[in-house]
This record gives sequence, structure tokens and C-alpha cells, in this order.
Amino acid sequence: MSVPNRKSPESLQDRLEQVTYLLHKYDPVEGQVQDDHDDAPVSVELSLHEQNLNELQLKLEELHPADVAYILESLPLEERLAIWQLVKSDRDGDILLEVSDAVRETLIADMDSHELIAAANNLDADELADLAPDLPRDVVRELMDTLDAQQRERLKSALSYADDQVGALMDFDMVTIRDDVSLEVVSRYLRRFEMLPDHTDKLFVVDNEGRLKGVLPIKKLLVSSPDALVADVMADDPVIFDPQDDAGVAAQAFERYDLVSAPVVDAKGTLYGRLTIDQMVDYIREESEAEVLAAAGLREEEDIFASVWKSVRNRWAWLAINLCTALIASRVIGLFEGSIEKLVALAALMPIVAGIGGNSGNQTITMIVRGIATGQVQVAHGRRLLRKEAGVALINGVFWGGVLSLVAYLLYGHIALSIVLMAAMVLNMLLAALMGVFIPLCRMRLGRDPALGSSVLITAITDSGGFFIFLGLATLFLL
Amino acid sequence: MSVPNRKSPESLQDRLEQVTYLLHKYDPVEGQVQDDHDDAPVSVELSLHEQNLNELQLKLEELHPADVAYILESLPLEERLAIWQLVKSDRDGDILLEVSDAVRETLIADMDSHELIAAANNLDADELADLAPDLPRDVVRELMDTLDAQQRERLKSALSYADDQVGALMDFDMVTIRDDVSLEVVSRYLRRFEMLPDHTDKLFVVDNEGRLKGVLPIKKLLVSSPDALVADVMADDPVIFDPQDDAGVAAQAFERYDLVSAPVVDAKGTLYGRLTIDQMVDYIREESEAEVLAAAGLREEEDIFASVWKSVRNRWAWLAINLCTALIASRVIGLFEGSIEKLVALAALMPIVAGIGGNSGNQTITMIVRGIATGQVQVAHGRRLLRKEAGVALINGVFWGGVLSLVAYLLYGHIALSIVLMAAMVLNMLLAALMGVFIPLCRMRLGRDPALGSSVLITAITDSGGFFIFLGLATLFLL
Repeated sequence: MSVPNRKSPESLQDRLEQVTYLLHKYDPVEGQVQDDHDDAPVSVELSLHEQNLNELQLKLEELHPADVAYILESLPLEERLAIWQLVKSDRDGDILLEVSDAVRETLIADMDSHELIAAANNLDADELADLAPDLPRDVVRELMDTLDAQQRERLKSALSYADDQVGALMDFDMVTIRDDVSLEVVSRYLRRFEMLPDHTDKLFVVDNEGRLKGVLPIKKLLVSSPDALVADVMADDPVIFDPQDDAGVAAQAFERYDLVSAPVVDAKGTLYGRLTIDQMVDYIREESEAEVLAAAGLREEEDIFASVWKSVRNRWAWLAINLCTALIASRVIGLFEGSIEKLVALAALMPIVAGIGGNSGNQTITMIVRGIATGQVQVAHGRRLLRKEAGVALINGVFWGGVLSLVAYLLYGHIALSIVLMAAMVLNMLLAALMGVFIPLCRMRLGRDPALGSSVLITAITDSGGFFIFLGLATLFLL
Repeated sequence: MSVPNRKSPESLQDRLEQVTYLLHKYDPVEGQVQDDHDDAPVSVELSLHEQNLNELQLKLEELHPADVAYILESLPLEERLAIWQLVKSDRDGDILLEVSDAVRETLIADMDSHELIAAANNLDADELADLAPDLPRDVVRELMDTLDAQQRERLKSALSYADDQVGALMDFDMVTIRDDVSLEVVSRYLRRFEMLPDHTDKLFVVDNEGRLKGVLPIKKLLVSSPDALVADVMADDPVIFDPQDDAGVAAQAFERYDLVSAPVVDAKGTLYGRLTIDQMVDYIREESEAEVLAAAGLREEEDIFASVWKSVRNRWAWLAINLCTALIASRVIGLFEGSIEKLVALAALMPIVAGIGGNSGNQTITMIVRGIATGQVQVAHGRRLLRKEAGVALINGVFWGGVLSLVAYLLYGHIALSIVLMAAMVLNMLLAALMGVFIPLCRMRLGRDPALGSSVLITAITDSGGFFIFLGLATLFLL
């Protein structure tokens, strides 16, 4: 028997290196031969190259689709497509499902409609629904025609839900049983399957009309007496979802109740589909990546080997917003050009006031947004949170403001300037605390997403606000 | 039979509201009666209050430990502790495992060592290991004494691993079988269990010395003939982990290969423990939260109802770093105070140069750090990535720099100033691109975490760099 295999990142890296090595070993295009055959005639090189490609093809066949996807994502475009050509066409569909959206685009662009239809042919309706938005329209239409009525119905229904709804993430691989049979009968029924669907940790108990009556956990089936009736053993209050439910909420429920699979049931109680933990894990990962990317001003996940133009498109929107806010801050400073001319130290000190306000405001708003996302912050808590955040801002402002105004005094020897600096820091941090609580709570009340662009918004406020407070105070008291 | 229950966030909110309502309905402390009994004598109020608490206690008993944890996290300290008192002590342990670290601290602080030991008594060794770091030392020592030898050994071994190692996340709930028996025998063996451990989707096949020989997926057990031998049906190349493996890598493997459980095996091949998807999901969630919090300059997850002092402690470190970088930027501006005095428009325009560089640099560094985390960016790609990022920076710099310098020209009517502004923006964005690629790749080469503080670092560079480039160019060419 073979030794159990450890799938560590090193082994993935190894495989990636093997693949690129084989791909380039006798590179006939550039004629660069990387080992001791460099005196061989070109024809030999070519056949050696072919031999290598065969070896490479065998290697790729051994790999899990997710591993092939990883290799494709890690290669620059030309090498990626060379590997993609070598993948057996019956695996194309599974691999397209595993790669990131950006890389999937490059792979699909390289395939003609014939290849695309062949790739899609091995997929289930729910998998097709994941792929369909990226496929050319005529391919989707042609695919629809090849499906049987049930599959077509399922594909249509899966496509009718938004990306972040349960209906878009569920599959249809339910194993259903009746409640009036014995576990012995259930066991015999299961043995008639070639293979049970992945993540089958419970069987779904339905009545004649397909309405869900409960679930029979496999682990109960295994420990209970074969003579017991399903109705006596099943759990009749499972966690269920509606296809319209928010996927994030479903993911939280999977996390909270440690679920592996759960039935999706429509308003009438009819069993409609199934959610599984692997889809939830992917969803959680994608959401958290989107959050990190959005925080840095990237619209979506980027193929790291994307063309310059694609990257520019992915990034320009946030740069534009950032420029607008910077322009506003610049105009605020412009209001006080006269003051700066008279006391140029103001120009050097003002970024400090803006910076500490931005940092402090981001801390507050991140915490509030997170609390709203988990449902632990409600509008009713507004006043209490405001008191707390104002307290934190006051303490930090007085302490760090004190340190900084001491430094400013040592640099400029101007005691009134130091006092104005300290006052401006405290006030800007209070502004940051106020807005950090106020903005997300308001947005929640208005039914908007409190997270969207929160960092940009709070930074814009604390920049312009910080410049205004500091330069305004200085103009009032120093000049 | 009961209707299947939908666990939506609304239902959780409802329960939270019911709980707070019952808690306060006849609040004897403040004497505020919230319904029509306000003419009842105090003694009646008190007994009514007691009745409510009983009702509340029954309600809490019906709830899943994760839901009780949610309610505790959502309540301010005094109400949280009032509810905590009502929870049956045999559920304390499970609930402590579910709450966030910050809230767990407040609950443990409220318990004496007798209560803590009672709470911990219902837990397995791996669960105890999760709790132990938060418990007082003498409680841990006393707990150790109550454990049998095997449990003590397991607890010690689980405690010997770092938080982000597989050994700290695994449990010991493996169901093991031999490979020379028939599936019929396996089924009979399983029926002797009262209950199978959660997330048992495969049985672990071991030899006499406890070495792992393979796994028997439950779904194969269910569809195969009862007469077949385990050895013929089992998978002999399962994905396995070493207790020293990085938990993040394990989480990625669970995601990639859609695992529900996986054996943990030591260097000699001996079965040592088990990883399950629920632990991995928690790990993924915690990691992504830590990332978001760190990006905003929060050291750790904060109890939203924490005291002001606790919050100050959680936030001051990043504020201090931020102040240092702001001070450096301020000193760079200080170098050019003479220039600003002569041309005060420089003061108003300089934050624009710094801001766009920071935004652009954050986009680059986020993408590179993410690529490194997934293993898709290697040091060897440095030159290619640099070329691409420089290209993006050049295009964005020329375009947005062009727009901005036009605005500056309209505002100040100073053509040379506009040209300097544009040049400074392009140069600062190129600096941002260079550093955005260079810093994480260098850190990776040195074996450091490329993500840590990357945003603070790049912003510090583009701030000081932006001021220096803009004011320096202006001093050279305009004055």
C-alpha cells in the first residue's frame, strides 16, 4: 500500500516547480536546452520536448483539480495556457470551478465554444450555475438545450438568485428517505447507490409531497438498532434555510452550530436543495478577501499576472475617490494659506493632527462595523458606545497630544503653538470617535452596508477636519 | 412533530430581546416596573422578578451554547453577568468555549475556582487546552489532578503547541478500526457506541502499533457490501497532517480538498489526533478578523462593551507607531519650511501627492502580500511584478496627475507649479509601486511575515517620500 500523503505547501510548490521544469526543459521555441543535450539536432530536441509534454500530461492527471487550479493561478499567462492545453478536456469543468474568477476569464478566453460545451457537460446544474456568468451567451444557450428538464429547471432556479443568497450556493445532491421505514431498509437503500454525494452527513426525511419532516444524521443511523423506525430516530428540528436567505447569515449558522450540511426549504416547506460546509468555507474566504481588498482600494481579486491595463481598471475607481477627498483636504488648507505664510510651522505640524485622527477613527469604525456584522451592536447601544469611544479618544488625545506638543515645543520653542497642537489633536480624535460610531450606525438604520468604504470616509473626515481644526485654532489664537 | 426551525439572525435578535426583556421586566434594584403592575407592593415585585428569572433560566436552557454565547457577547457587562449567573453550571464549560476571548475573560473573572473547576469538568482534553491559558494557574493545576493519565497526557501535549499549529487545534475523538475485518464487523462495532463523535465522516484504520494505514470513509461503508474487507475498501492515501504543521496550511488543505475530518499523524506514522472542519472554519474566521483588525491598528478583538482603559490598552501601540511616522513626515516638511514660506500653495498641494502615493502603494502591497500568502508569488517573480506595477503606477500617475495638475493650474494659475505637482505624483506612485513589491518580497526572503504592519510601513514611506519629492522638486525648479 502507498504511504499516506502529506499535502503541505512545500509539496504543492514542488509540484509547481516540476511542472515548469518539464514545460521548459527542451523549449523548442527559444531553443534553450537546459541540460546536457545541447549538441543534439533540433529534431531530437523537438521529440524530447514532446516526450516531456507527455510526462507532464501524466503528472497533471494525477493531481487533484484544486491543485491544477493552483498551478494555473501561479503561472504567467503564456505558461498557464500551455499547461491548460495539456489538461484532459473531461477535467476542464472541475478545474474551471476551482480557479479564481480572474484566472478563469483568461482560461475561458482561450477556449472555443466546442471546448467549453465539452467542459461543461460533466457538471451538475449547481456547478453550471457558478460557471454560467463567465461563459459566452451562445454557449450557455446551447448548454441549456443539452440538459434534461429537471436539470434545466435547477440551473434556471440557481441562476435566479443573487451571488450572496443561499439559492446561489446550494446544490441538489440530497439523499431523501421516508419516515415510515426501518433503518434496515434505509441501509439497504443506501447500498444501491454507486457512491453517496460528498458531505452527506444526514439524510433528508420527506413526506409524499416532498415536504421536509426532519433529518436522519448518518451517525445516528450507524449507532441505532436496524429495527428502529426512521420517525423514531430522526431529528425533527434541524437547522434549515430558505433559498432567499443571506449567504453570510447561513455561513454564520454553519459556524455556530458546526454543521456539515443543511436542507434548503422553500416557503411551503418543500425540500428544495442542500447547503454544504465546503460552499460555506469558500464563501467565508471570499468575503474576507473582498473585505481586505476593499480596504486597500481594490475592486476585486486580481490575477497577479494580469495585464497592466486590467490592473489599472481594477484600481482606478478607488484612486479617483481618494483624489477627490485629497482635493477637499487641500482646499481646506487653501483657506488658511494666509496663516501658514505667517507661521510656516503650521504646515509641518498639520499632517500629524490629520494622521492621528485618521488612525484613531479607523480603529473605532472597524470595531463598530464588526460589531454590526455579528449583530452585537444595535442602534440602541449608540449612546453607550459613543461615551466609551469618546473616553478612549480623550485619554489617547491627552496623552499622545501631550507627548507630541512637548516635541513641538522642543522643535519650535513656541508654547502657544504647542497648546493649539494639543487641543487640535484632542478635538480631531473626538471628531473621529463621534463619526466612527455615528456613520456605521446611521448607515445600518438606513439599511445600507455599514462596511462599504468606511475607511475612506472616516479618513476623509479626519483629514479635512484635522486641517480645519488645527489651522482654524491657530488662526484664532496665534495670529 | 415540531416545525423545522430556521435559525436566522432575526430569530437570534428576537431571543436576545426576550432575554433582556425578562431580565428587566421587574427590575427590583431600580424599582422600575415596565408594565401595568406599578401599584404592586415591593414584595410582589420581588416575587414576580424571581418568577421572571425562572422563566429566563428555562429559556436559556433551550438555547444552543453558541446562542447563549452570542447573547452574553451582546450584553453590557452588568447584564452579561446577571445572565451568566442564571446559566446551569454544567453548561458553563461549553459556553466558555464559544465566547470570544475578550468576553471569556470577563466571565472567568466573575467565577471562583470552585465554579471554574466544575465548569471544566465536562470538557475533553482538547477543549480544556483551549480554555487553560485563560484560567488561573492554581485552577489549571487542580484540574490536572482530576484527570486520568491519558487525558492529562493529551492536555499536556495539546498545550505544548503554539496557537497556530495543528497540534493545538486537533481533538482526540478518533474512531479506529483494523483493516482485516469485514464491513459487517465494523457496523456491529459502531452500534456499540452510544453516539459517534461529531464530524465523523471517516474511520481511521490502524495497525497493532497504532500506525495509520488508511481511512474508511463512512459513505463508502454505507454503499459497500457488508462482506467486503476494510483493507479492500479503505482509501490508503488520505490527506494527513503533522501536529507541528501550520494551522493556516491545514485550513487551506481543508478548503482545497473539501475535507470534513483528517488524521493527524506523528513523524513515526502513529495516529495522534484528528482535525475537523469546524475547528478550521473557526481558525479561518479568526485569522481573517485578525487581519482586518490589524489593518485598522487594533491589537486584538475587543469586547465592544469593554472598559475605556482596556480599549486604550488595545489601541495605543499602533497609535504610537502612527505618531512616529507622522513625526518623521512632519520633519521632512520642516526641511522645506523656507520654500513653503515663499510659495504657500505647496502646503495646500502636498497632502495630495502623499495621499495618492499611499493609496496606490496600499493597493500594490495588498496584492503582493495576498499572493505570497497563497504561495503564488515567489521571489523569482520579483522583476516581472515590478515591471507590471511600475506600468500601472505610470499610467495612473500620468492620468490622475494630469487631472490634478489641471485643477491646480485653474486654482493657482502657476504653470510650473502644475508641472512639478504632476512630476511629483508620478514619482511618488513609482516609489509606492517599487516599495509595494520590494518590502513584502524582502520580508519573505528573510523569513518574516510579509503582512505584518505592511500598510503602516508603505504609508509611512509614501507620506515622507511624497513630501520630500514634491517639496524638493519645487525648491529646485520653482524658487
